[in-house]
Amino acid sequence: MTLDFWFDFSSPYAYLASTQIDGIAARTGATLRWRPMLLGAVFKEVGQVSVPMAAASPAKQLYYVQDMARWATWWGVPYRFPSAFPIRSILPLRTFLAYEALGLGDPLPFARAVYHAAWAEDRDITDPDVLRACGAPEAALAAAPEMKQALIDATSAAVAAGVFGAPTCIVDGTWLFWGQDRLDMVEKCLNGWVPPA
Amino acid sequence: MTLDFWFDFSSPYAYLASTQIDGIAARTGATLRWRPMLLGAVFKEVGQVSVPMAAASPAKQLYYVQDMARWATWWGVPYRFPSAFPIRSILPLRTFLAYEALGLGDPLPFARAVYHAAWAEDRDITDPDVLRACGAPEAALAAAPEMKQALIDATSAAVAAGVFGAPTCIVDGTWLFWGQDRLDMVEKCLNGWVPPA
Repeated sequence: MTLDFWFDFSSPYAYLASTQIDGIAARTGATLRWRPMLLGAVFKEVGQVSVPMAAASPAKQLYYVQDMARWATWWGVPYRFPSAFPIRSILPLRTFLAYEALGLGDPLPFARAVYHAAWAEDRDITDPDVLRACGAPEAALAAAPEMKQALIDATSAAVAAGVFGAPTCIVDGTWLFWGQDRLDMVEKCLNGWVPPA
Repeated sequence: MTLDFWFDFSSPYAYLASTQIDGIAARTGATLRWRPMLLGAVFKEVGQVSVPMAAASPAKQLYYVQDMARWATWWGVPYRFPSAFPIRSILPLRTFLAYEALGLGDPLPFARAVYHAAWAEDRDITDPDVLRACGAPEAALAAAPEMKQALIDATSAAVAAGVFGAPTCIVDGTWLFWGQDRLDMVEKCLNGWVPPA
């Protein structure tokens, strides 16, 4: 079975899910694909506010901040809310796409390092030097500006697949699950559970 | 430890949680209180749209409908999205409060029956005859109009406690959890887990 993991480095909940997704694929034998998208553009496309957290009521905003920290503790992963939010993720997303376009090897170690830098170490992932420290090859950084259309296309593919938020997991091109809080269902689905239609 | 379960009969996710909450209290030895509130008034108070589902993008609305059915299957509980939505819950909520005000006994069998009628049988819980079939005593139904202020007060208490949605669980007056998808955390918290501040 396939597991598409739609992500944007700007999403705290996608970071949290990213710490679990490889394990889920390993345990279930699923073919995992990390699929980048520009979340802000997805929101625009589906007719949603661009920073949902900023649009929430004060009580809900406070809750989200607590909730993210709880999930990090729940899974035992490092986490720190960044000093600058929302995070601008265009450069690392384009760099990720350049990996694939130029055949520079597996981009996942880079992706995991970028997530860690942004959401555990409060480092500025708009800074090319930070991306270098995350393992980005010079060729990928140099090609990033040419990946503008590739990122637009990747984002359109997300919307076409029914994605409206991050993280989104799609099992076998059929079952869409939104959120780090649906990963138990994702794993069960990969183990043969057929959700109701 | 105490477990406050803030609910409104109008909320599908609160219905789903209501099928689990008694078991959680039983397993953990928590003192459970079902606490009614008028969710629409809570939304108004905290500055949120009155029917979040109706305000969501089409893709997200479709997802919510699937997601609710998935949770019902996940927990093996009956579920059917009602033919009339949103559900007007003022009468059953006031009837619930009348139980307490008049000392008519434990209102929980009534509450569970109302939830089942609304979310498993698509019955009209604005109809007093349906509430009678759910076990409402005549005295509670007769006193329901006098419970207007009591429901306003209960709703204010919810907002004062930090509630902004349904279902909300509050453990020991301290830890607030929003959603049927946080019940694992609620149970862990009742078993001694201290969430990060």
